[in-house]
Amino acid sequence: MDAGWAMNVVGVDVGATKIAAGVISPEGEVLSRMRCPTAKMPEKLLSGIVRAVLEVKDGFEIGGVCVAVPGLILSQESMVVCSPNLHAIEGIRLKDELESEIKLPLTIENDNSAAAWGEFRFGAGRGTNHLVFVGLGTGIGGGVVIHGELLRGAQGSGGELGHVTIQATGPRCACGNRGCLEALASGSAIGRRARQVASEKPASALGCLAAERKVLGEDVTRLAREGDEAALSVLEEAGRWLGIGLAGFVNIFNPEAIVVGGGAMGAGELMLASARQEIRARARPPARDLVEVREATLGPDSGVLGAAALAKDASGRYLL
Amino acid sequence: MDAGWAMNVVGVDVGATKIAAGVISPEGEVLSRMRCPTAKMPEKLLSGIVRAVLEVKDGFEIGGVCVAVPGLILSQESMVVCSPNLHAIEGIRLKDELESEIKLPLTIENDNSAAAWGEFRFGAGRGTNHLVFVGLGTGIGGGVVIHGELLRGAQGSGGELGHVTIQATGPRCACGNRGCLEALASGSAIGRRARQVASEKPASALGCLAAERKVLGEDVTRLAREGDEAALSVLEEAGRWLGIGLAGFVNIFNPEAIVVGGGAMGAGELMLASARQEIRARARPPARDLVEVREATLGPDSGVLGAAALAKDASGRYLL
Repeated sequence: MDAGWAMNVVGVDVGATKIAAGVISPEGEVLSRMRCPTAKMPEKLLSGIVRAVLEVKDGFEIGGVCVAVPGLILSQESMVVCSPNLHAIEGIRLKDELESEIKLPLTIENDNSAAAWGEFRFGAGRGTNHLVFVGLGTGIGGGVVIHGELLRGAQGSGGELGHVTIQATGPRCACGNRGCLEALASGSAIGRRARQVASEKPASALGCLAAERKVLGEDVTRLAREGDEAALSVLEEAGRWLGIGLAGFVNIFNPEAIVVGGGAMGAGELMLASARQEIRARARPPARDLVEVREATLGPDSGVLGAAALAKDASGRYLL
Repeated sequence: MDAGWAMNVVGVDVGATKIAAGVISPEGEVLSRMRCPTAKMPEKLLSGIVRAVLEVKDGFEIGGVCVAVPGLILSQESMVVCSPNLHAIEGIRLKDELESEIKLPLTIENDNSAAAWGEFRFGAGRGTNHLVFVGLGTGIGGGVVIHGELLRGAQGSGGELGHVTIQATGPRCACGNRGCLEALASGSAIGRRARQVASEKPASALGCLAAERKVLGEDVTRLAREGDEAALSVLEEAGRWLGIGLAGFVNIFNPEAIVVGGGAMGAGELMLASARQEIRARARPPARDLVEVREATLGPDSGVLGAAALAKDASGRYLL
């Protein structure tokens, strides 16, 4: 086997609640996979990542490992400086700590950059050169591919698309700012807005559910699919906010495709239809006429596959 | 002389009111320059550009020419599809039309990308690898350098930073959208807001001027420098809107520097101080702590110098 090339790699996607890891062949096939819960204490979190890698790679020859983590990365130090949903990972020199245990060439990436790269290489973004990935979950993350390369910025924390202001006087965001895209179109924003709409329309299915228990983002999608007008209006409105953000990204990046993924993308076209309307109304030609808004196709695998494709060998060469 | 290298180049900056052209040495020195008014009819506009190039290059050996034009470019066709301030240039295959007359290798670029490149190579952005340039004039244009390369996007129309929505319910923008950065922080936005404030504060210097004639953006800067509180408040507010937009660019691009230039930058720190406050409040670490907001240092030369540095020889190699 050609040293450094055509070797299997391990991709790891560290989420706030679970760690997913996979062995990926040079052809992008998943040869082995595992999942385990994410520990909340720094030491247990690190040993959990190591255990996931060692377990999943058992029996395979591996050229390199890439671990994708949530939060803002200082890439020179391979350190996460800010991870609102996984504080345990903040301030640790991940490469140093993990490499000595894993004993393989190790790369650290941002989780949404990895997911963007996964969709770019293997999913809805295949065939493009310029791609914007937006991950809708509890929050909103982003990853950007420009001329076939990931946008990282000077320190490695670029591509933070959830925290651009689209309504300066809008609701408070988890980041402390007001009116971020995340504060208006994320899963938690959808849940918050749904609880308001439920109190305005108590006779709707949304209103009835809210009388029983706290309404969450995923409830809204379910009720909307069952035809509840109140739930549909919440998703349509969130889709419009999403589209206002995406229109800006169209003008900034002139991408061939915007791929929307993440857990909240269960809503699919119920959000994307109104998002596309806003893009048509707000973005400018020629970029507006080129861009396609697509749903991600890899689901939860985008992070693992993307991380795998960002793994490098000891000389710094990509393996996939 | 080494063919294709170490040759003088011509940079041309086509503005809505004037064309500026210069011969630039391999060391970035301006050897010759000229200015002429921009004609508003397509044929006269084209012949004006040709004449500017032929006149300025007279007596110099030239390796290539780059013409920077306002508007959204389809780079494959070297065509401007949308230029709100210079309609005469829309829909013309500029490279084909001009190259046959100029008889030198010709490159077409967006004017704000050229200005960004000028500041990156020779001005306030020297020494950086990741730079955001914002040109404040009648409108707002942008240019972005990522890892030492210009962001162009799939069709060449990327970097359109003036038309990102920062207040979705905000005032109507010249582009048709609502609440664009341009609609809230450009020279014309400052003039519009100043006329409102003048009517609210008729005893202010701003109010007195408004009683005599229509207040423009540049009046506001002058009155603010003379200490008029009303004028100062208009610039401070525009600076806050600017900062809201810039904070988004910090999160997206994680740049080392944001360089603010353009005609409206006469206001300087009267706007930038409040812009920096918004960045501190709204952008995230580590990007927030790295970025420096600087005034452009090349003034109106940034476009000509940047264009010159983007000129290529016949084989597609940059000359400067």
